[in-house]
Amino acid sequence: MSFTVRFVPDDLTVRVPAGTSLRRAAGMAGIELKSACGGEGTCGQCLVRVLEGAGARFLGGSVSPRRRREGYLPACRTVVEGDLVVEVPDFARLARHRVLVDRIRKGEVLAEEDTDVIGRFGLDPFLSRLTLKLDPPNLTENASDWARLAAALRREAGDPELTVGTRLDLLRRLPKVLRKGDWDATVWLCASDRPARLEVVDVAPGAFRGPDLGLAVDIGTTSVVVHLVDLDRGATLAARGTFNRQSRYGDDVITRIIHASETERGLGELHEAVIETVNELVDGLCLAADVRPADIRSVVAAGNTTMEHLFLRIPPDFIRLEPYIPAAVDFPVVTAGELGLAVNPAAQVRCVPSVASYVGGDIVAGVLATGLSDRDQVSLFIDIGTNGEMVLGNREWMVACACSAGPCFEGGGITHGMRAVPGAIERLDIGPGYEVHVETVGGEPPKGICGSGLVDALAKLKDAGVIDRAGKFQEVDTPRRRDGPDGAEFVLVTAEEGPVEIVITEADVKNLIRAKGAVYAGIRSLLRAVDLEVGDITRIDIAGGFGNYLNIRGAVRIGMLPDVDRSCYRFVGNTSVKGARASLLSRKAFETARSLARRMTYLELSVGSGFMDEFTSALFLPHTDLTLFPSVEV
Amino acid sequence: MSFTVRFVPDDLTVRVPAGTSLRRAAGMAGIELKSACGGEGTCGQCLVRVLEGAGARFLGGSVSPRRRREGYLPACRTVVEGDLVVEVPDFARLARHRVLVDRIRKGEVLAEEDTDVIGRFGLDPFLSRLTLKLDPPNLTENASDWARLAAALRREAGDPELTVGTRLDLLRRLPKVLRKGDWDATVWLCASDRPARLEVVDVAPGAFRGPDLGLAVDIGTTSVVVHLVDLDRGATLAARGTFNRQSRYGDDVITRIIHASETERGLGELHEAVIETVNELVDGLCLAADVRPADIRSVVAAGNTTMEHLFLRIPPDFIRLEPYIPAAVDFPVVTAGELGLAVNPAAQVRCVPSVASYVGGDIVAGVLATGLSDRDQVSLFIDIGTNGEMVLGNREWMVACACSAGPCFEGGGITHGMRAVPGAIERLDIGPGYEVHVETVGGEPPKGICGSGLVDALAKLKDAGVIDRAGKFQEVDTPRRRDGPDGAEFVLVTAEEGPVEIVITEADVKNLIRAKGAVYAGIRSLLRAVDLEVGDITRIDIAGGFGNYLNIRGAVRIGMLPDVDRSCYRFVGNTSVKGARASLLSRKAFETARSLARRMTYLELSVGSGFMDEFTSALFLPHTDLTLFPSVEV
Repeated sequence: MSFTVRFVPDDLTVRVPAGTSLRRAAGMAGIELKSACGGEGTCGQCLVRVLEGAGARFLGGSVSPRRRREGYLPACRTVVEGDLVVEVPDFARLARHRVLVDRIRKGEVLAEEDTDVIGRFGLDPFLSRLTLKLDPPNLTENASDWARLAAALRREAGDPELTVGTRLDLLRRLPKVLRKGDWDATVWLCASDRPARLEVVDVAPGAFRGPDLGLAVDIGTTSVVVHLVDLDRGATLAARGTFNRQSRYGDDVITRIIHASETERGLGELHEAVIETVNELVDGLCLAADVRPADIRSVVAAGNTTMEHLFLRIPPDFIRLEPYIPAAVDFPVVTAGELGLAVNPAAQVRCVPSVASYVGGDIVAGVLATGLSDRDQVSLFIDIGTNGEMVLGNREWMVACACSAGPCFEGGGITHGMRAVPGAIERLDIGPGYEVHVETVGGEPPKGICGSGLVDALAKLKDAGVIDRAGKFQEVDTPRRRDGPDGAEFVLVTAEEGPVEIVITEADVKNLIRAKGAVYAGIRSLLRAVDLEVGDITRIDIAGGFGNYLNIRGAVRIGMLPDVDRSCYRFVGNTSVKGARASLLSRKAFETARSLARRMTYLELSVGSGFMDEFTSALFLPHTDLTLFPSVEV
Repeated sequence: MSFTVRFVPDDLTVRVPAGTSLRRAAGMAGIELKSACGGEGTCGQCLVRVLEGAGARFLGGSVSPRRRREGYLPACRTVVEGDLVVEVPDFARLARHRVLVDRIRKGEVLAEEDTDVIGRFGLDPFLSRLTLKLDPPNLTENASDWARLAAALRREAGDPELTVGTRLDLLRRLPKVLRKGDWDATVWLCASDRPARLEVVDVAPGAFRGPDLGLAVDIGTTSVVVHLVDLDRGATLAARGTFNRQSRYGDDVITRIIHASETERGLGELHEAVIETVNELVDGLCLAADVRPADIRSVVAAGNTTMEHLFLRIPPDFIRLEPYIPAAVDFPVVTAGELGLAVNPAAQVRCVPSVASYVGGDIVAGVLATGLSDRDQVSLFIDIGTNGEMVLGNREWMVACACSAGPCFEGGGITHGMRAVPGAIERLDIGPGYEVHVETVGGEPPKGICGSGLVDALAKLKDAGVIDRAGKFQEVDTPRRRDGPDGAEFVLVTAEEGPVEIVITEADVKNLIRAKGAVYAGIRSLLRAVDLEVGDITRIDIAGGFGNYLNIRGAVRIGMLPDVDRSCYRFVGNTSVKGARASLLSRKAFETARSLARRMTYLELSVGSGFMDEFTSALFLPHTDLTLFPSVEV
C-alpha cells in the first residue's frame, strides 16, 4: 500500500509506502528538515502541519505546547497512512543551499590577512610547479617514462641523489601525458619534510599556463566556509560559505557522533554530507572566479576534531565517551580523489592538527592566525559556538579547554532562536515603557533571534527589570510580559510589529544563563590552571561567526565575558579558515600549526579543574561574585 | 530475436541474442576458449564444431584446411542465427582452472633455495611484528589513539625522534582495534628505506599468535605461480600455479597490449584477469596450508614488464611501439587493497623492478636467484618462453636482451602444439625404420607436443634425414612422411598408436627454425656487444617451465643453444618466483634486485646490434657457420 503526500508551499508530491515517516517523505521530495536529534523525535525541530487528509499517525515525540497547539507535529515521528497535504514551515527547513558568505573580487587581494601571513611566514606553499623539456626517447635512450622524468628533476635540482617518489595513479597517466605534450611537461611537486626527497603530485602535458590554486576549508559543525586561493600571488580570489549538510543528521557534534557510531551507514553519510557541502562551494567558487576545479591541487582543512574525523571518514566514536579519546589529532596527507573532493584528484589534502577531542584544528588554526603564541603578554582566544573553545597563553605556554555552551548561541533550543542569517534579531533595546526596538541581520523584517541578539536580550531584560539576577521573570506592568503556553515569557516582537510574533521565555533565559555560565567558567578554569587572574589578560580575541555581531558590553553585563577594558577585545572573524589559508600559502605556517598543536596543554574540564564550582557561581547575572564584574551595575 | 545454444559435452545451454558470436555464447556458458589473437579471427585457436542446427553463420577467419575439413569454425567469427548444438573440443579450451603446480609440505622447508637465500642475504623481511601493551587512556592521559601507539613505538625503538607514519585506512580501524584488545595490540611495521622512519602497516587487537605470511608471485604471460611463505621461519609452505586468465584476451604480450590500449575496458579487464588468477591461487594455497588470507601481509611479484604494468593497471601501450618505452620499471609500493588482491588489504605489494620493455622483473629476479652477478666468471642466464630473454655477465657487468621467439615453444602456432601439461610429448626418438617412440608429460597417452618435444623432434627429424639443414622435407620411404592438407608432414603418432593423430608439418618446422634461430642470434648479439665468444661462457642457466624438460643435447644439435660442454648447463627452474621469494624474505635481496635492474645494460636488438645478420645465419640446422657447432655432426 502506498499513498501520496503533497508538500506545500513547494507543491511537491511524492508517493510513499504506508508507514513512511513524513521526514523521510519530505527528504524524497527534496525538502530537508532541521534536526538536532537526528530523527529521534526529541528535539522538536522538524515540525510540519497536516493541512488535508486523515492518514497521518503521530507516534509520540517532543513538540512544545505552543507548536502543538498550532497543529505542528515532528515529521520524524509522524507516519503516512493515507493521502496527505502537508505544510513545511520556513522555520523547520534546513536552508542548506543558502550561501552564507559569498565574496569575490577580481584582480585584487581579497583578504588583508594574506599579506600579513606572507609577511610572517613567507610565500612558500607546499605545491610548486616546474616546466620540463624532456629529450624524446629513442632506441638507444630508452629509459622508462618515469625514469626520464625523475632524471630531469634530479638535473633541475642539481642533486643526482635526490629521491623522487610518486603515486601509482600518476604512473597510470604518465605515458599519455608525456606524449600529448610531445615530451614537454609541467610537474607539480611537493618537497617532503625529509631532505633530498621530492614527491611528484601531478603532471600535465606541455607548459601549463593556468593558475596554481589552493583551497582553504573551515569545516564548522554548523557551516562550512571555503576560500579559493591563488598560490602564485598569495591572494584569496573568492570566498563562500554555506550550511554544513551534515545538519540533517543532527545539530551538534554529539548527535553526529552518535549517528556515525550507532547506525550502519552513518559514518559514510556524514562523510559524504560534508564532502558534498565542500564540493557545492567549490563549484560555485570556480564558476564565480572563472577557474577550473582541476587547477586546485592543494587543500588545507581545519575543523573541530569531530569534523576532521568525519571529513576523513575516521570513526569519531570515542570522542564522546569518557575519557574522550580521538582516533588521531595529526593526520596523514591524503589525496582529494580518496576523499571524493571535486578538485584535481591528485590534490594533496592536509588537515590542521587538533589538540584533543574538544580542541580541534579550527582552534589551532585560530591561534596560528591570531599570533597568540608570538606575543609576550597573555592573550585569550575564544571561539563560541555550540562548544565554547578557548586558549589562554603567550609565547611561553598555552592552555586550552572546551566547555559545552549548548546550541543556544546558534539559535538551538530557544523558542524563536535562529542562526545569524538575514531577519535574525542581533541587537535590541528595551525602552522605559518596555517598548522594544530590534535590529536584524540585513535589516530584514524580524523572523527570530540569533546568538548575539540573545546575549543582548538577556542584558536588556535584566536592565529593564524583567528578569532578576537568577533569570527569574518579575511581575512588570506591560502586556509584553505574559504567561504563555510554556510558562512566563516576554514578547520581543508582537504579531502587529512584525511578520511573526517573537517571544523569549523563562526557559530560554535559563538556557542562556547556563550557556554564558559555561563560557565564563571555562575562562576562569584556564586562569586558575596557570594561577592568573582576569586582570592578567591583555587581549581577548573573539573568533567565529557569532563574534562578529556580539555586543561585548552586553556579554560582559550578563557575565559571559571577563570584565576587562573594552579595548582588550578584538573580533577576529573566521580564524579557522584564516589559519587554513596561512597553511596553504606557507609550509612554515603549517609546520608552526603542527608544533602549536603539540605545545598546547589541554585542560579536561571534567577532571578536578574546579569547573563545576565555577559554573555554579556563574549561574547568576552577571555572577555570584560581583567583585569580578566591577563595571556592571546590579 | 534470441536463440538457444547448447554446448557439448558440457551440456550447458545459454540463450543469446541473434548475432552473438559463439565465442561470447561460450563465455556466457562459462566455457573459456583459447585465443592468441584476442578474438580477431586470425589465430584459428578458438575452434568449435556445430553438431545440430543450421543457424550458424561463419563470417570468415583463419582455420587450417585440416580443421576446416573436420568441420571446425573459429568461434569468434561465427555468429548465432538459430538454435544450435555446438561441440567444444578439448584442444580449443583454455584450461584456466587447471593447477599447474601444486606442492605442499607441512612442517618442513619446501624449497632448498630458502636456506640458500637466507644464507646469502639474511632473514630480514620488510614486514616485522611487535606486540605492544599500551597504557589505557584516562582523563589526564588523553593522547589520541594514534599518538599513543606512535609514542609506544618510539619507546620500543628507544628513539624519541623516530618518525612514525601510517595510512588513513589504519586510522579508520585503529580506535576499535585498540579497545577490542583492551589496549594490547599487535602492530606490523615496515622500516622505511630512510633511517628513523617506520611505517605502521597493520594493527590487530591483543597479542597476535598467528603466522606472518608472505606471497611470492611469478606473473608469467602464460602461467602464474604463487608461493606461500612463512616469514618468521623463512620457509615456503606451499606453491601453486595455474594459467594466467589473461590468456582469454590473447596468448602473447603484444596481443594483450593491443587489447589494453585499443579497447575501452581492455586495461581493466586484463588487470582484473591477473588479479583473479592470483586470488584463485591464494584461495587454494590458504585452504591447503590451513592459513588465513588475512595473515598474508607482504607480497612481492615478478613478471615481465608488460605483466607488471597490467598487474598494477598501468597502461602498457608504448611497450609495443618503437622506441618501446614502458611507463616505469621501478614501481611504488602499493597495498593489496588498492589492487584487489584477496590477502590482507593492508599488505604491502612490491614488484621486482624491470630493466626495459622486454627485460622485466622476472629476469631481474632470475639474475638475483641464480647469483650471476656474484660470480667472477661469465655466465649466461636464459629464459625461453614466447620471448627469449637473456642476460650475459658477471660481477662487473651485465648485458641483457630479448628476442621474439614466437609462441611455438609454448605450443602456439604449431599444428599439434600444446603446453607442457600431461599428455604432451616432451621427448621422442625416431628409429631406423622411422618408427617413433614418444615420452609424454605424466606418461599419459599423447595428445600433442610441447616445446621440449618440438626441439627434440626437430633434432631427430634432421638426424633421421626427414628434413634437411634448411628444414625442407625430404622424400623418405615411410607412410609417416606424407602430403597433408597443409603440405608435407610427418606423422609422429598415428591414429592407431594414440588417441589422436599427431603430425608435424613443414610449416611447423619452419616456425621452429625461426624460433631457435632467434634465440641463438640473441645469444650471439650479447656476446658481440661485449666482444666475447661462445667459449668464454662458463655457465648457462636455463630458467622457465620450458627449461625443465629441455633436451640440451637436442637444443644444441638444432643450433638453439651454444655448443659448449654439457656440464656448463643448469636447469634453474622458475627463477622469477625464486627471486620474488628472496625479496620477500630479505629487504637486502630486494634492494639488490633494484640495483641489478639499474646496472643491467639493455641491448635493443633492433638497433645496429647485427641481430638480423645473426638471425639469418641461424636459420639452418644447426647454423650456417658450422664451426660454431663442432660437436654436431651434419
